Amino acid sequence: MRELGAKAVTTNKVAARAGVSVGSLYQYFPNKTALFTAVAERHALETEQAILPLLDRLAVEPPEELVDTVVEALVALERVDAVLHAELMRLSLWGQTSGVIQTCRRTFEAHLADLLARRAADLPRPLDPTATARVLVRAMGGVFEVCAQEPDEGFDDALLTETLTRMVAGTLGYS
Amino acid sequence: MRELGAKAVTTNKVAARAGVSVGSLYQYFPNKTALFTAVAERHALETEQAILPLLDRLAVEPPEELVDTVVEALVALERVDAVLHAELMRLSLWGQTSGVIQTCRRTFEAHLADLLARRAADLPRPLDPTATARVLVRAMGGVFEVCAQEPDEGFDDALLTETLTRMVAGTLGYS
Repeated sequence: MRELGAKAVTTNKVAARAGVSVGSLYQYFPNKTALFTAVAERHALETEQAILPLLDRLAVEPPEELVDTVVEALVALERVDAVLHAELMRLSLWGQTSGVIQTCRRTFEAHLADLLARRAADLPRPLDPTATARVLVRAMGGVFEVCAQEPDEGFDDALLTETLTRMVAGTLGYS
Repeated sequence: MRELGAKAVTTNKVAARAGVSVGSLYQYFPNKTALFTAVAERHALETEQAILPLLDRLAVEPPEELVDTVVEALVALERVDAVLHAELMRLSLWGQTSGVIQTCRRTFEAHLADLLARRAADLPRPLDPTATARVLVRAMGGVFEVCAQEPDEGFDDALLTETLTRMVAGTLGYS
């Protein structure tokens, strides 16, 4: 899918790549929706595996590194999510697969809220960890969703990171 | 649509409400997609009419009111957009109608970028007006999109506004 774009994915091509017959493939994935639901599920797992070490780092990070690590974790999650999200929307498969991605996002929000609660003493002011985590994750999702769907508008990456860092710092109370 | 939810909208009900025959309605809107595209277009117009006075205020606002007015403008645009967006997604009509809403968002991004450029001297530090406007509008869109699609999670409104205000202040360089 990453190579060809989701539109070009046919069960024939997937079967050829996997080195199995179309018949065997259909046993596991009776249609494209089942196939993409599996892709979304694997994506959710991979994302969790990529995010967990960042969250671990966040738990012990010196206070002055907190903002950068939060930005790194959010970008890692949302940038990949947004590409998959855009593909699934284009295929009108979003309705059938969004549950997987929603669960993934909620898990991340809960982890982040938990960490913000534990690092409260290192933040410059009191804040509600749950509300802050939700706003951060969803805001970052909105930014990358549009960027993935309208890539011609593409930002300069350094400028985008700088702007997002200001956004995260502000949301964490550095203002 | 606002009263019944989009799912319950049938051409029969629309015709009855409008006091016209189903035949006349079909002359203008041959199907539900055409009807909802018209809804999206009217929404885009109404939004622009609601936002323009806020943008005018932003042009002359004392510096200390800038953040609150930006938050107000973003919330005004995105909260309504998100509800429509969620309905159109649920109906799988997003593909056919998203262009209208994208145009609306881009117009707002361009207006906001223009204003930030003009108010540069009143902001605490130099920033890229286009990147900042895009991040703000898209971030706010992401927050309200999720809130509209999963309303059971609903925030306390005061807490949400407080968190969003920190986010906007930070993105505008108040940190």
